[in-house]
Amino acid sequence: MKRLLTALMITTSVSPVLAAEPEVAYPAGYRDWHHVKSMVIDKGHPLFESFGGIHHLYANKKAMEGYRAGKFPNGAVIVFDLLEAKQADNAVTEGARKVVGVMHKDAKKFAATGGWGFEGFGGGDKTNRVVRANAATACFACHTPQKDHDYVFSRLRD
Amino acid sequence: MKRLLTALMITTSVSPVLAAEPEVAYPAGYRDWHHVKSMVIDKGHPLFESFGGIHHLYANKKAMEGYRAGKFPNGAVIVFDLLEAKQADNAVTEGARKVVGVMHKDAKKFAATGGWGFEGFGGGDKTNRVVRANAATACFACHTPQKDHDYVFSRLRD
Repeated sequence: MKRLLTALMITTSVSPVLAAEPEVAYPAGYRDWHHVKSMVIDKGHPLFESFGGIHHLYANKKAMEGYRAGKFPNGAVIVFDLLEAKQADNAVTEGARKVVGVMHKDAKKFAATGGWGFEGFGGGDKTNRVVRANAATACFACHTPQKDHDYVFSRLRD
Repeated sequence: MKRLLTALMITTSVSPVLAAEPEVAYPAGYRDWHHVKSMVIDKGHPLFESFGGIHHLYANKKAMEGYRAGKFPNGAVIVFDLLEAKQADNAVTEGARKVVGVMHKDAKKFAATGGWGFEGFGGGDKTNRVVRANAATACFACHTPQKDHDYVFSRLRD
């Protein structure tokens, strides 16, 4: 009986994971990671609709190894943190968070999209997943030209 | 004789420090510190001449305590990292480093300027000090309205 219960518990806890799309975890603590670089995307830019605002890229330690090597190890996480860009009085300041975009390297789990899992958390809300099963078309397609840099657009700077 | 030599050595090593302005150390490793916030200052802004470009603020651990408390402990260091802002194709990207500005808290050493030492490293060059003995007029004067926040303009955000 005990063995049966254990087997049932394992089955119950494992099966939803097997059935669902592989999920990208919310990048807890990313605001303390290394700030890689930033950019402002204004109206008129081809990516304005998706990425208009000011964005900052953050990398965890494994992602830092990846930037240096040109190939990212499993566990590397890069965050694209997009905030509103408020233009006033000849300055651009940061506004509300629009989305926390995440690339999470796991060569096996995300084999279908170059070994990277992609997710966006709308407004930075951990529960508001905006990519879900659409990573291949919504994210990976635009990253394929960066294949020689392991699908990552950004580069480290001093 | 040994005592005299020791006394001479102490005098020799201490006297240049006593004679010179208190010096702010270059903030080694600041690019791995917490990224506090960013801003772009454009032409037409009253601070454009001094601070035009895109700047990022970084805080060491003691400075993070200070942001939370509203009062910064000795050893707190805040970096104002100013890069050229390249405007093209409806985007602003980062260019060359213009200056690494530093505020370093040491209530005793920098008592004359609110307990903060101020320095700027032109182009990010550790040897190119652009403030030196002019901290009171070149830096501290503009920070005095922030006395209630320990002379710090920036605030933490999520």
